[in-house]
Amino acid sequence: MSEDKLKIDRIHKGTVIDHIDAGYALTILSLTGLDESPDLMTIGVNVYSKKHGKKDIIKIEGVFLNEIQMQKISILSPNASISLIDNYKVIEKKRVSIPRIIKKLIVCVNKTCISNSELASGGREPIDYEFTVLEERPLKIQCVYCDRIYKLDEITFASKEKTEKKLKQKIQL
Amino acid sequence: MSEDKLKIDRIHKGTVIDHIDAGYALTILSLTGLDESPDLMTIGVNVYSKKHGKKDIIKIEGVFLNEIQMQKISILSPNASISLIDNYKVIEKKRVSIPRIIKKLIVCVNKTCISNSELASGGREPIDYEFTVLEERPLKIQCVYCDRIYKLDEITFASKEKTEKKLKQKIQL
Repeated sequence: MSEDKLKIDRIHKGTVIDHIDAGYALTILSLTGLDESPDLMTIGVNVYSKKHGKKDIIKIEGVFLNEIQMQKISILSPNASISLIDNYKVIEKKRVSIPRIIKKLIVCVNKTCISNSELASGGREPIDYEFTVLEERPLKIQCVYCDRIYKLDEITFASKEKTEKKLKQKIQL
Repeated sequence: MSEDKLKIDRIHKGTVIDHIDAGYALTILSLTGLDESPDLMTIGVNVYSKKHGKKDIIKIEGVFLNEIQMQKISILSPNASISLIDNYKVIEKKRVSIPRIIKKLIVCVNKTCISNSELASGGREPIDYEFTVLEERPLKIQCVYCDRIYKLDEITFASKEKTEKKLKQKIQL
């Protein structure tokens, strides 16, 4: 009795995210909300790669990434490549790139930072979080308001905008 | 230019979790701690299945599940099957089964429940959470102490025992 083959259907129309840093695919799925897709998705974690030793890869049917999702991926995996698939063919291939300024996506956890003060904005509009990217790899970013520096393992992403989550996500982990 | 093939290496020695309810694979990985495995892992989400319409499947190298992981999977996907692989061959195949009593894994969130009172145990040992399984599918469980009934989307799993988490998990989502 040999091991059942996992049939990996090719993507008809959708996205392949390749060259993800090994071990980051599941974090990327959760952070971008792609984990809630109702369509076919195949994920390889710690896959052997000639270039990088190990890498992760995500193939997802029926989804094209938006700018915010691309930025989040660039923060976690600056070497990732994105391929857009249509009719089983790659119609566009691009690399992610970390913006020089990261807006809104990441939270400054310094309580005394002006970005966390409602009064600071005159009680009208809250100030958006904003960070300058000092170094891409390994990531080092700095809050433009309080100058606090964060490394990749210290950052806190802003919570997802979704108000309603599917049943399976409601199971509190 | 055709779509890059995702090479799915066969599992040499490890575990295949098949017939997972569609959309639950990623929750299972997180809940069982399998998401931290440093070895090859391939995951199919919403894969077409003759029997169930859609299903998820996880193949994971170098890992055999323990009893607690099997119980967690049975709660989330009572139809899941587990195949143990050695030398590329299935050496054992089993179905998960929900225990009649679930101990420790799930938390009763009723604050007035005796299982949440330290005094109730005479200040010596805390009482372990314990639930009777009333119905398997859809899941319905009842706290043996306060009789509160929970459905699948209402349950809270006890937090993982791990004290130290890897870098990628420290990124707060």
